[in-house]
Amino acid sequence: MTTTVIVGGVAGGMSTAARLRRRDEEMEIIVLEASGHVSFANCGLPYHVSGVIPERQSLLLQTPESLRARFNLDVRVNTRATAIDRAAKTVTTDTGETIAYDHLVLSPGATPVIPPIPGIERALHLRTVEDVDVINAALTPEVKSVAIIGGGFIGLEMAENLRHRDLEVTIIERAPQIMAPLDEEMAAIVEKHLAGHGVQVLTGADTETIADDTLELTDGRTIPADLVIASIGVRPASELAAEAGLEVGEHGGIKVDEQQRTSDPAIFALGDAAEKADAVSGEDTLVPLAQTANRHGRLVADVITGRDVRRTTTLGTAIVGLFGLAAASVGWNERRARAAGKNIRVIHVHPADHAGYYPGAETLHLKLVVDADTDAILGAQGVGMAGVDKRIDVIATAMRGGLNATDLADLELAYAPQFGSAKDPVNFLGYVNDNMVAGERTVQWHELEETVADGWTLIDVRTPGEFAKSTIPGAVNIPVDEMRERVEELRGNRALVFCRVGLRGHVAVTLLEHHGVEAANLDGGFMTWEYAPHDQG
Amino acid sequence: MTTTVIVGGVAGGMSTAARLRRRDEEMEIIVLEASGHVSFANCGLPYHVSGVIPERQSLLLQTPESLRARFNLDVRVNTRATAIDRAAKTVTTDTGETIAYDHLVLSPGATPVIPPIPGIERALHLRTVEDVDVINAALTPEVKSVAIIGGGFIGLEMAENLRHRDLEVTIIERAPQIMAPLDEEMAAIVEKHLAGHGVQVLTGADTETIADDTLELTDGRTIPADLVIASIGVRPASELAAEAGLEVGEHGGIKVDEQQRTSDPAIFALGDAAEKADAVSGEDTLVPLAQTANRHGRLVADVITGRDVRRTTTLGTAIVGLFGLAAASVGWNERRARAAGKNIRVIHVHPADHAGYYPGAETLHLKLVVDADTDAILGAQGVGMAGVDKRIDVIATAMRGGLNATDLADLELAYAPQFGSAKDPVNFLGYVNDNMVAGERTVQWHELEETVADGWTLIDVRTPGEFAKSTIPGAVNIPVDEMRERVEELRGNRALVFCRVGLRGHVAVTLLEHHGVEAANLDGGFMTWEYAPHDQG
Repeated sequence: MTTTVIVGGVAGGMSTAARLRRRDEEMEIIVLEASGHVSFANCGLPYHVSGVIPERQSLLLQTPESLRARFNLDVRVNTRATAIDRAAKTVTTDTGETIAYDHLVLSPGATPVIPPIPGIERALHLRTVEDVDVINAALTPEVKSVAIIGGGFIGLEMAENLRHRDLEVTIIERAPQIMAPLDEEMAAIVEKHLAGHGVQVLTGADTETIADDTLELTDGRTIPADLVIASIGVRPASELAAEAGLEVGEHGGIKVDEQQRTSDPAIFALGDAAEKADAVSGEDTLVPLAQTANRHGRLVADVITGRDVRRTTTLGTAIVGLFGLAAASVGWNERRARAAGKNIRVIHVHPADHAGYYPGAETLHLKLVVDADTDAILGAQGVGMAGVDKRIDVIATAMRGGLNATDLADLELAYAPQFGSAKDPVNFLGYVNDNMVAGERTVQWHELEETVADGWTLIDVRTPGEFAKSTIPGAVNIPVDEMRERVEELRGNRALVFCRVGLRGHVAVTLLEHHGVEAANLDGGFMTWEYAPHDQG
Repeated sequence: MTTTVIVGGVAGGMSTAARLRRRDEEMEIIVLEASGHVSFANCGLPYHVSGVIPERQSLLLQTPESLRARFNLDVRVNTRATAIDRAAKTVTTDTGETIAYDHLVLSPGATPVIPPIPGIERALHLRTVEDVDVINAALTPEVKSVAIIGGGFIGLEMAENLRHRDLEVTIIERAPQIMAPLDEEMAAIVEKHLAGHGVQVLTGADTETIADDTLELTDGRTIPADLVIASIGVRPASELAAEAGLEVGEHGGIKVDEQQRTSDPAIFALGDAAEKADAVSGEDTLVPLAQTANRHGRLVADVITGRDVRRTTTLGTAIVGLFGLAAASVGWNERRARAAGKNIRVIHVHPADHAGYYPGAETLHLKLVVDADTDAILGAQGVGMAGVDKRIDVIATAMRGGLNATDLADLELAYAPQFGSAKDPVNFLGYVNDNMVAGERTVQWHELEETVADGWTLIDVRTPGEFAKSTIPGAVNIPVDEMRERVEELRGNRALVFCRVGLRGHVAVTLLEHHGVEAANLDGGFMTWEYAPHDQG
């Protein structure tokens, strides 16, 4: 009989343990969990703060007792592994035990990053069930305001849930935008939505000091903060591995091979503590997501029990729900693709999530980033009140299946008017990409200024009514339906056209080009431009 | 200057026309539409009967005038093409014109099948805006009951919308089930849901006569029917093509090549009137779906204007929404796969559409049909109140991308508790498939009886409480959490185990097999068995 010791009993560790037992009835399986709970719903924690998930019990999916009964697991909570003796093949715990292993699986998760700000010891964090208990206890009736340092997924989810408790909530984000996986013009849609729900979002804001009931920014502003929550991010909990001499990757995660094996063949690592292989570049990366941890847990159990399986690379598909709005991403964003020096095509569309003639249609903001040299999909982002998760999942699946951007036009997605359109938003991305492959030129919102400066004439092809309401400064109005008659007005010009979302602009561009007028379409139209951060004067 | 004549101005025809103009500003483009409207929202028609879509106007997406203004199209409504002279390259219309073409595009759609039932002339149909007007006019206050002949998509949608008008609605379906794309145990879920919303569903029911205010079945039953709607199905409107000597396929659709070209190189066909290539077998098939028509319209325009593009095969992804329930399918069902002699794996799962600990989770019934020889996904079906469209779209995309069933386990789908689970329902299908690839045996609901007759012991591994409420006749209760202690009770038996949905059954099977007891899991558990049509003892 062999023994496997698993350090960490949440997503990855517990997936490993349960799968190990299903694969091997004899093996001794010991799980060491530092917190008081195993297999808890960590992605549900913020929702217990608001009472959206009212019962604390419903966050606790398993107990040591239930796991003993079903899987004959030896689960030890409140037990931290403190050292590994690789030569002796033993783990020492803070409860004073030394446990021998044949295989060791490290799934200790990640640790909140604690910035060196004076007063930071007052800030609370959210990783465990105990953390939620601390936050709920701290939310006394005297607490009226909360400052959240960090505009990532957990910080934003906390903002929503604290607003549900009628607190004054401020998010302080050092970067120029919240939600790093999104590009700035997509994050801006989320920021506007949060503001509409009473969350004050401060970007480009740096905390100087945390005072007694305020938070002082470096720019001199004072933010009310009866309570402070720090969610700057996490770093892999790789200390135990590093101290045991296991190789740690450049991102600080435990380095593993395709079978999640560390530099010691008897030791595996997975979850937030381990590095992953990026699906786009193949390079090592960090992706702290529960689903990846679960998949790798199953894989590690298979490998330990003698099945020769390999991990796939990691796309990092992620989503957050905020006051009914969903914001999701997969793969690389434009910022990352440009930083990597890729030659890219970028496409923004704003279709309805389902047929516009059926009640309840909501605008869906989708962005696709394409490798212009290979037509490979590099990544996608979506923001909207409905249908975002579906489209990002479809694109994630297309990426996994090696479909290229033009193939998106041919995807057959289930259509009835409640669910989509005969041309689904994802098909639309494929159509626009195909038009660009065929030579149509588009201009990005951040290229508009320099394009106009370069002598292009800015043409608003929407109706006079739309034009009168609001347009891009400097634009001339020639409605698309008059373009055929008025094309001579543009003779000799280079026309940068735009409509509301890009569709009429596309029609206008093809028409102008056929008539010998050089033309380009503002990608995503007025809507992308209007959301994007820029000097609107 | 060349001329393209397009017969049919709804989905496929209008997509062709608009794309042709974007590709060629000079071409003369003439669209002949037999009904009074072009480019109308045919998938929205049933919802105007109930008033869910209150404005008739919102069904009319374009008019001949708007299409003239934007695309310089010559659109002629109420104009039916009556003959093609292929030698002269002309089309004759019922308005007395003869129009010369360089290219002819046939997109006339499909025609409702009219069964030879006495009294059928009283039955109404639903294909066009005019048909909706006729139905709405017929729904006088005196009409209390409606019989719908045919339990396909349109018949079911009509049933819902007529129930919204508080009418007594009966669906008469000749087959043993409604919704032919689904297998019977999946269709049964839909039938139960319809019954719960007051729709009487009669399957295996054949209409003998349509009388004045009733409908007489061959089994002697009389169904109240102040109004009768026939939606038995459609057949391709291929007469015009056939009369012109164009090749018609074995399914009655116009035969086309990969570029939608008919046996006459100057004539193209697409949409419901044309045959498609099935994605699973590659054989000709009929798929009357708007999205396919749109895609092929774009393709035909590209080919006519000199772009060498090819169609992809057709998966036939489809969905219907009924009183909040969605039922969807892609590819082949089990019935079709078995009829084709495929060696298949069949998987049923019933997970929640999103994390169970987050409010509002709904049960999602998913079925996967896999080629056991190649692990290729042959098809999938989904039924549920939430998340069905997403999962079917993901599987459709996986099929298009050539992913196999085991790959579904590794898909990275966007997870937050509102949207899914750390192990998404689609991942689950992949996990179950992987277990079967590794040798785990499952039994289908329709194989249960013969398996028990063959001497297998039926074991309910749910809790005593669940067992007491309802179980499969003949089952013995050994809860999964007691199995390890009680395994000796089963020594020498072959154990057919089941739980609620299959998950605990899987754990029990692995445990029993490790202890030397031959075991198999009832696929989909008690839930699939309970929904399935069978003699419940």
